[in-house]
Amino acid sequence: MKSRLHGAGRTPRPVPPAQPPVRGSAPGVVLGVDPSLRGTGYGVIRFTSPAPVVVAQGVVSCPAAWEVSRCLVKIAETLRELIRQTRPSVCVVEGLFYAQNLQTALVMGQARGASIVAAAEAGLEVYEIAPRKVKQAIVGYGAAQKLAVAKMVQRLLRLSEVPAPDAADALALALAHFQEQGRYNLTPPRKL
Amino acid sequence: MKSRLHGAGRTPRPVPPAQPPVRGSAPGVVLGVDPSLRGTGYGVIRFTSPAPVVVAQGVVSCPAAWEVSRCLVKIAETLRELIRQTRPSVCVVEGLFYAQNLQTALVMGQARGASIVAAAEAGLEVYEIAPRKVKQAIVGYGAAQKLAVAKMVQRLLRLSEVPAPDAADALALALAHFQEQGRYNLTPPRKL
Repeated sequence: MKSRLHGAGRTPRPVPPAQPPVRGSAPGVVLGVDPSLRGTGYGVIRFTSPAPVVVAQGVVSCPAAWEVSRCLVKIAETLRELIRQTRPSVCVVEGLFYAQNLQTALVMGQARGASIVAAAEAGLEVYEIAPRKVKQAIVGYGAAQKLAVAKMVQRLLRLSEVPAPDAADALALALAHFQEQGRYNLTPPRKL
Repeated sequence: MKSRLHGAGRTPRPVPPAQPPVRGSAPGVVLGVDPSLRGTGYGVIRFTSPAPVVVAQGVVSCPAAWEVSRCLVKIAETLRELIRQTRPSVCVVEGLFYAQNLQTALVMGQARGASIVAAAEAGLEVYEIAPRKVKQAIVGYGAAQKLAVAKMVQRLLRLSEVPAPDAADALALALAHFQEQGRYNLTPPRKL
């Protein structure tokens, strides 16, 4: 089997301009990323007193007709621009997840790779948290439904609307990471 | 479970300088990439008459002690520099592969994502070929051993030594792609 990841006759596109390293990034600004080829969720939270503030949130949407490489480039470009604008110091991605099969894991791994490269090259520290752990931290129940997570994220962050599911997951990652930082860990973070 | 993908206290590193789009790339120069977190193989072949010439080959080695994000950044950086120096017009990555489990597929997917982003942002068209198809094209037998592939690659490309296994696989990908381009395809490339 031979498959095309990219359209033929594609005009060479300019490599994105170099961005400065994230200097002046605040330690309390966290970027959460829920990587997926067609809908990568992202959320940036500034943890200030008295309440955390959502700096940015959204979804990198890539239509089904787009080639894999075009999607990966859009994910990397969008995150680079987001980091440039919001200057987080830490990136938290979704960790071990449930995948239906090897192909799904491979495709999601690609989106994760594109996201991590964009964040790490911008100087952010990159962490992962498992989905169950995030749900446990946000809703108090590791097998919580997506909508329950989104509604709790809305409440915790005082958002006027329930965020889109993928953006809610990303915001939940950032929230869970900050929560974890502030409490005593019986099991210290495992280095990958 | 919470895991760290990157070391704490990491000094923000400068984002790599922007590279110009691959202008003046020759249609007959093909980059093969066999992505893997710890040992990504690469090979660049210029298909000239009377015989193809290996322009570059090697392995991006990342020690087991390195964090995932550091490996992914090194893979992307190395491929970007390689493309800048050798100016291929096409990148061929290993397609559907055998993975022992979901975790392996996820990790390999990440390396694949980092590789594809580097190639696509530099303006290359990105294709994939399944490992069995590559072995079939090079050795004539889809379940050929790695060493058999490496020895045939050495012979076809008139190399003085047998290439390292990962580099040989990358060179085999580039060779197989070029072979496919030159013959009638009953099954046209499937667009991803």
